[in-house]
Amino acid sequence: MKALWLEDGNLSVREIDVPPASGEALVRVTLSGICGTDLELTRGYYPYAGVPGHEFVGEVAEAPDPEWVGERVVAEINDACGTCAMCRRGHPTHCERRTVLGIVAHDGAHAEYVRVPVANLHRVPDGVPDEAAVFAEPLAAALEILEQVHIRPGDRVLLVGAGRLGQLVGRVLALTGAHVRVLARYERQIELLALAGVECVAEDEVGERCWDVVVEATGSPSGLHTARAALRPRGTLVLKSTYRGEVTLDLAPFVVDEITVVGSRCGPFEPALELLATGRIDPVPLIETRYPLARALEAFEAAVRPGAMKVLLEPGGGPPGS
Amino acid sequence: MKALWLEDGNLSVREIDVPPASGEALVRVTLSGICGTDLELTRGYYPYAGVPGHEFVGEVAEAPDPEWVGERVVAEINDACGTCAMCRRGHPTHCERRTVLGIVAHDGAHAEYVRVPVANLHRVPDGVPDEAAVFAEPLAAALEILEQVHIRPGDRVLLVGAGRLGQLVGRVLALTGAHVRVLARYERQIELLALAGVECVAEDEVGERCWDVVVEATGSPSGLHTARAALRPRGTLVLKSTYRGEVTLDLAPFVVDEITVVGSRCGPFEPALELLATGRIDPVPLIETRYPLARALEAFEAAVRPGAMKVLLEPGGGPPGS
Repeated sequence: MKALWLEDGNLSVREIDVPPASGEALVRVTLSGICGTDLELTRGYYPYAGVPGHEFVGEVAEAPDPEWVGERVVAEINDACGTCAMCRRGHPTHCERRTVLGIVAHDGAHAEYVRVPVANLHRVPDGVPDEAAVFAEPLAAALEILEQVHIRPGDRVLLVGAGRLGQLVGRVLALTGAHVRVLARYERQIELLALAGVECVAEDEVGERCWDVVVEATGSPSGLHTARAALRPRGTLVLKSTYRGEVTLDLAPFVVDEITVVGSRCGPFEPALELLATGRIDPVPLIETRYPLARALEAFEAAVRPGAMKVLLEPGGGPPGS
Repeated sequence: MKALWLEDGNLSVREIDVPPASGEALVRVTLSGICGTDLELTRGYYPYAGVPGHEFVGEVAEAPDPEWVGERVVAEINDACGTCAMCRRGHPTHCERRTVLGIVAHDGAHAEYVRVPVANLHRVPDGVPDEAAVFAEPLAAALEILEQVHIRPGDRVLLVGAGRLGQLVGRVLALTGAHVRVLARYERQIELLALAGVECVAEDEVGERCWDVVVEATGSPSGLHTARAALRPRGTLVLKSTYRGEVTLDLAPFVVDEITVVGSRCGPFEPALELLATGRIDPVPLIETRYPLARALEAFEAAVRPGAMKVLLEPGGGPPGS
């Protein structure tokens, strides 16, 4: 099958074997999305070698349980052992022995086929097109903020960053009914948020020490400092992006102002699918462009451009073995 | 009156006027305690000039309300405006216009007399000796952790640091019934904790990623790194010490492990006084030595020694005006 391959930070499209039969389901990938983490992997964020990609929608081609075959699915990305301390606590996304699709020791979805544990599959509701379903994973990650932090309707919430993930985070934050404003860098980001009824704020109107909750979704030290300065004493700072390298911080103000900092990663798929099914969140306008898998390197170049929105790959594979 | 004076990081004992009458109470200081923040002030942590000292017990000499005169009291250290956004939210310790006794724009307690707002006074219960009451402020600060973080009896809680504040934090954490262990540096610290029934853990037995809650009370980057490494995914890291200067951190693991970080400062006085009154916490063994105010510079030298416990000053002033 055709697959994108990452090794030593270099990408190539190559022919590899369809992943061999295992206890997992084999899914024919219809669409996969390029995420910031994919780009970070090419810069050495993790020493991963294999097929990248963890946002996708597809159709089950083979499964241990034949009821799954033919189903349109998305899938959670952490393959958990089910028996370690974190799994037993109900946190399988923190399984100490986990593999992570396209990130840690498990081939990912930028390929014609991907194998995923049956336990990780979620059926896509009929009314949700593939173009929306492919956002299930990052939308779930955005929802994780609401799993972790109680945002009240009376809160003032600032989102710093309106990129691929930030766009979804802004839409999710707006669900709370709180006073939500987004600090965006590019005109296109502001337009897309406006389309979803989410308002932006100009940098010189953010103010200092006056937001109850600030979500940092730039992954940059400057974004982090902006977020910190905007937060009120006793406020909550959510770190929604992974940071490359080390960041230098003056921690004294975190103590004096009794700030709470919450790191946030993977989230719940079912509510994400429900938001897509009801249309309360429509991510389709975030699609910037689509490339066939054979042109994946061009797609990555498009995705890395400043302000780029979602770039999709279309693996378009035939039946397995064809 | 005699007072300790801090200016440009230098301490001196000098004669200054008794603070002039104001809406505040005038308290004759019986005992004052030297705290880590006092030591930091001499190193330029804040650009404060004036009388330092914010841990004390004394007797009210004058007050707008004569009912207070003659009462034995301790006092909260933040003088709040009562009208700003943080005060209206019920967080007077975060008042944006606050002064802080002996720290920010308000003369402190290392003096024969100190003026404090009547609203900040707390009567000391009869059974609590001055030597215990002088710990009310740092004990309240330790209790702030339990105000902020729900520690469950089933939790594994690690305290990193067993200095002056750490000793009180260890005793407070033990109240929760959780599995509490302390990483202490000095034999004397371990003995004092043992006296209070709080167990320590050897550094090579701390382990990694296995504590539900870790409290950092060293204020050092190395303590912070130890604390972070010990914490499990989804755990809570409490920053209980102020940090001098900047700290360099790799934030990616905070996001990937979805860590919560909570800065913690001043706490509630009434429960602190109740714990002292019931004897459930007895801080008196933490007193290392006492000096008359005239020898305050020697006292600070004693307090700065590695592993030093609580050093007290005895102002021993006569009636005001004498």
